[in-house]
Amino acid sequence: MPDRLRGKNVNPDFSLVTYLSERKALVDSALEDNLSGGQNDPPVIFQAIRYSLLAGGKRIRPILCLAAAEVVGGKAEAVLPVACALEMIHTYSLIHDDLPAMDNDDFRRGRPTSHKVFGEDIAILAGDALLTEAFRLLTSRENMPGIPPERLLDVSCEIAEAAGHRGMVGGQVLDIRAEGEAVGLETLYAIHRRKTGALLRVSIRAGAILAGAGEEALAALSDYGGKIGLAFQIADDILNVEGDPLLLGKGTGSDAARGKVTFPALMGIDASRAQAAELVMDAIASLASFDDRAAQLRAIAQYILERRS
Amino acid sequence: MPDRLRGKNVNPDFSLVTYLSERKALVDSALEDNLSGGQNDPPVIFQAIRYSLLAGGKRIRPILCLAAAEVVGGKAEAVLPVACALEMIHTYSLIHDDLPAMDNDDFRRGRPTSHKVFGEDIAILAGDALLTEAFRLLTSRENMPGIPPERLLDVSCEIAEAAGHRGMVGGQVLDIRAEGEAVGLETLYAIHRRKTGALLRVSIRAGAILAGAGEEALAALSDYGGKIGLAFQIADDILNVEGDPLLLGKGTGSDAARGKVTFPALMGIDASRAQAAELVMDAIASLASFDDRAAQLRAIAQYILERRS
Repeated sequence: MPDRLRGKNVNPDFSLVTYLSERKALVDSALEDNLSGGQNDPPVIFQAIRYSLLAGGKRIRPILCLAAAEVVGGKAEAVLPVACALEMIHTYSLIHDDLPAMDNDDFRRGRPTSHKVFGEDIAILAGDALLTEAFRLLTSRENMPGIPPERLLDVSCEIAEAAGHRGMVGGQVLDIRAEGEAVGLETLYAIHRRKTGALLRVSIRAGAILAGAGEEALAALSDYGGKIGLAFQIADDILNVEGDPLLLGKGTGSDAARGKVTFPALMGIDASRAQAAELVMDAIASLASFDDRAAQLRAIAQYILERRS
Repeated sequence: MPDRLRGKNVNPDFSLVTYLSERKALVDSALEDNLSGGQNDPPVIFQAIRYSLLAGGKRIRPILCLAAAEVVGGKAEAVLPVACALEMIHTYSLIHDDLPAMDNDDFRRGRPTSHKVFGEDIAILAGDALLTEAFRLLTSRENMPGIPPERLLDVSCEIAEAAGHRGMVGGQVLDIRAEGEAVGLETLYAIHRRKTGALLRVSIRAGAILAGAGEEALAALSDYGGKIGLAFQIADDILNVEGDPLLLGKGTGSDAARGKVTFPALMGIDASRAQAAELVMDAIASLASFDDRAAQLRAIAQYILERRS
């Protein structure tokens, strides 16, 4: 890792663009390392895993995990395997959500979706493999020698809770069932708290817990995580209405065409934008007790509002 | 748990039928307990999980896990959550394998498969949820307070390795790709070592590791596990040729119709039966260093050969 990423006290007016791209490079390289040694795997599943995992995502979840570890005084490198696992879980969920039986999407991150390239059977199995590999990484003691085993267990357990039927999977079920239905704002919140919110929130909590956060710091960071999670989804919905397909790497307008319930559909674009902005302000306010070390988290919250892809 | 299951020194001429049905009841009741409290889940995913998980499987993997813990002096109750997690992983793999994009099976355990009842989308998500829930259970410290966290981590990690692309998922990939191909015995072994063997073997290792097995005992039990894993698959292939569809709860002859590579197809029924018998004898021989406490494991090995469903 470059030296400039090691320091705990980063200048508050640092460049977010540089920071995000350096962090993305760090995560990408760790993901690449974790995918080596696959010579004994059936080649096609290994290709399918790499195809989706190394497709150039923004790596928001891992970056949040690393930043949360640092904000409470930990080191980013120490929690890198957990950060990678979070990205694997996110990627598996995208592969399965894109399947014909689910959202039936042909493009993702500017490329044909996994089932378009490898067939549905391999896409299902690639998702299964990524989810399983995530838990292998989460529970690999030798990768994270400095971290007490109790913390590794607690973080793995929380991540499973957030990813499973009480969290992300449950959110996807609610989302599928809501398509074409008359759904109110309360239900929409419930869908997104689970579907995207739970994993984003646990990404932050994981980094903080692993680095030994105290109760107060953890509560503040959880609050931040819950708020940016919802803001992230509202921003996503807005991008699906008026984003640039070229930047997004996928078509826009698909939510409306599918009769998908979204924030813009329920409250209009302007109110959606205002709500996202308020959530981001609140998220930043949750970080009041942290010093300049929280500059990254503050900037990431702002970025969620302004991102174009 | 009934008192008669608590003793470490079970009579060597105990009734296997009684033992298996008591153990199955113990596992079923623990699975039921672990599925309670789902009132906050979307009802359909919860129904789908219960439908497949409580469909009356033989619970071989959990029973092996409990028996392995006992053979090295541990208590069955102490490892029950891990035993349940193994059954959840097995069940998720069945749900996904049955999908139209994979084996396209309409019946399983005498009932319509998950996607036939709930649709493909919910079946995929139910599998995802079960796999995730398995790792939540595996990493729940409060459920297994007597077990050192290091052991819980190591067992979770081994199970993930056995279930993922290096193990079960990889085996399913090889199996799908071998359909209709001219495949030799070596490839068939490689498929089954991964597809069914890895999870059966790790079920035994998990119970033993959690109960604090020494290196020699663990090596012997791993050897036993590898052998019965392969014998189990050969027996399965034989049942698919000449089993009773009523007892099996699914049609026979499906492997041949699908051009699936099997042991009977490659070496004939008689040689397959002989090979399974030899593996079971070898498996029992691996247990030579254990006393009467290994009576259950010996009997289970024998049962694999003789089972009718």
